This record gives sequence, C-alpha cells and structure tokens, in this order.
Amino acid sequence: MSTRRVAGPEIERLIQLLSKLPGLGPRSARRAALHLVQKKDQLLIPLAEAMGVAVDQVGICSECGTVDTSDPCTICSDPRRDGATIVVVEDVSDLWALERASAVSAHYHVLGGTLSPLDGIGPDDLNISKLVERIEGGAVSEVILAVNATVEGQTTAHFITDQLARFENVKVTRLAHGVPVGGELDYLDEGTLAQALRARTKF
Amino acid sequence: MSTRRVAGPEIERLIQLLSKLPGLGPRSARRAALHLVQKKDQLLIPLAEAMGVAVDQVGICSECGTVDTSDPCTICSDPRRDGATIVVVEDVSDLWALERASAVSAHYHVLGGTLSPLDGIGPDDLNISKLVERIEGGAVSEVILAVNATVEGQTTAHFITDQLARFENVKVTRLAHGVPVGGELDYLDEGTLAQALRARTKF
Repeated sequence: MSTRRVAGPEIERLIQLLSKLPGLGPRSARRAALHLVQKKDQLLIPLAEAMGVAVDQVGICSECGTVDTSDPCTICSDPRRDGATIVVVEDVSDLWALERASAVSAHYHVLGGTLSPLDGIGPDDLNISKLVERIEGGAVSEVILAVNATVEGQTTAHFITDQLARFENVKVTRLAHGVPVGGELDYLDEGTLAQALRARTKF
Repeated sequence: MSTRRVAGPEIERLIQLLSKLPGLGPRSARRAALHLVQKKDQLLIPLAEAMGVAVDQVGICSECGTVDTSDPCTICSDPRRDGATIVVVEDVSDLWALERASAVSAHYHVLGGTLSPLDGIGPDDLNISKLVERIEGGAVSEVILAVNATVEGQTTAHFITDQLARFENVKVTRLAHGVPVGGELDYLDEGTLAQALRARTKF
C-alpha cells in the first residue's frame, strides 16, 4: 500500500500478517486479504474460526515432537502403527512428506532442526535426549534416520548414531541414496550418481 | 494428506481453508499451516486476531462500494481528495492498483464486475444505479472510466457512458490505450500498436 490510506489500518494489518506466510509475498497477500474480506461468509469467518481452534488446541506432542491437537499425537496414539520402529526426521514437514508417500507405518521423532555449530545449534537445542529416553524404554528395535541429505543432516545422523551405539539391540538405518524415481541421469549431480553406482542392486 | 491421519482434523481443516486463498495450492497451504502452528505466538495468534477484527468490522462502503472497516470508507471521507472526480473501477483490486500508482487523488466507484450477458450479469447486478445517484448529487464534474481493456470492460464503459449522457456538465473520460511504460514494441499485440499510433502525441 502507498503512503496514502486506501482502507482502515485493520485491513493493512491483515495484509501485513498474511504476507508473512510462506508462499505469499506482499502482492499476493493483498490479493488474499481482498479475497478473504470479499468472501466473508464462505472463507473469512470459517478460516478465522479454524485459526482460533488451532490457537486453543494445537501443541507439541510430548512423545515425538510433532504438532497436533492432541497429546500424545494422532500418530503416537495410533495402535495400528508399528511402535518398534521410529523414523527420525528434522522437521514436521518431513514427517508429513513421508506420510504422504505412505511408505512406512511407524512412529516418528521430530528433531526440530539439525546440528549446526555455525548457527549455534548444538545437541541440547534438538529433541535428541527424548529420543534416547524413548529407546531406553526398550520397545524400539529400529531407528530409521530420515534426515536430509545435506551436510548438516548427515552430521546430525552421525551424532545420533553415536548416541544410540550403546543400544545393541537397536538397528540404526538411514534412507538409501540413489537416482530419484522418474529422474534422468543427465540432470543428476556427480555425488548422487556415484552413490547410486556404489549401492547398485541385482536386477 | 493421505488417507492415514497424521494430525487431528482441526489441522486438516485449517490446511483445507488456507488452500482456498488465491496463490496457495494444497502443498503451499500445508506449508503455511505448519508455519502458522509452529509460530503460534508470532503469527498464528496475531493473524487469528486480525481476522476476527476483519470479520467484525469490514464491510462495503455504501457510497463507493469498496471494502473497508468504516462506512463511508477511508477514501470517501478523506477531505484532501478531489470529490469532483470519480474513478470508476471494476473491482476493489483495481482501486488498490490505481492507489499504488498514486496517479490520481480522487474518489472511486467500484462496480463489482462487468456486464456479461453470457454469465447473466446485467446492469442491475452491478453498482451502477448508485453511481448515477452520486452524480445526480451535482458535485461531480468528471467520471474517469478505469475499466479493463477487455470486451466486457469496454461494453460496460459504453453502457455507463449512455447512462451518464444526460448529465451535460459531467465529462466522461477513459484511460489512454498505448505502449506500456517499459514495454518493447516487438512483444506488443497489433491492437495496442494500432491504438498507440492512432493516439500519438507531439514529442
């Protein structure tokens, strides 16, 4: 908005807050705000209510660290899931991505980030001690480290592996590296190709 | 989200409503919802409050038809604006775009769409009779038709011009057609080039 006022400060505040959402810039936030106030009954009122509910009810699962409206969360309290396997992820978005793939029906553990000495993020800033505590409970037989294939992700994976070394009955695994499904070799980096060759399997 | 639940229905409802905002698809709505619940104090609570305020206070200006938290709106009640000039726009977003350009300090009139017989939108569905009423008030000397350069926009402009023909002291103008500032001739359509040539001005 320019220095001249075209609407009350309440609308400008709504635009300003919407522009902080990922995926919305100042221009699209303005469009979104206009859409909201023009669709008051169909969108603005239901969304305001849904946000109010989220404010009241959403919290962090004390078991795995994901966000949910119940504690323990929907996943931790799902009896159909395999509680002997814990998939360790960096962030809730990674958990949601793995669930969309429906590749595993296990429990999760959300670290809340990666080790990053440069940013001052050490082991105590991550949800690692609770992971160790869960494994001390004795019911876990496998920990799958589903962290990102970045330097920080791999550093964090190594650190957790060290922390879990004393649990001799717990297998620690990590995601396979290789060619993404649908990927073309020509567009892949050398590191991925080298890993895919090294980890080749019988056809 | 897949058929398996990864979080309570409250979060999925929030995602579903966010995905109805322009500029957000299902994937970015999920990212936005996660961002909101993870930044509860900094973003979710303020945004929920701002939406609550908008629900309570935002309405349509009974004078010009824009959305605002006051009636008459911020623009209609601004004494520094030239009340003798009314800029007619299709939608509130056009009003906001013109205000960003700071090209005119006048009053506005929001039609709420364009005439479109195929979609069953006739003169009574637009905010036209109120425009005529405002001009009958006698204080208006110029009506600038700032409608889109589309067939529907131009049809609407012609209809309004007819409606205002009886006000002999009111000048009805429209936006100039021509080469957009920064535009390259090679990329412009023939219609725009022809108009720009026809309406050429002394250098």
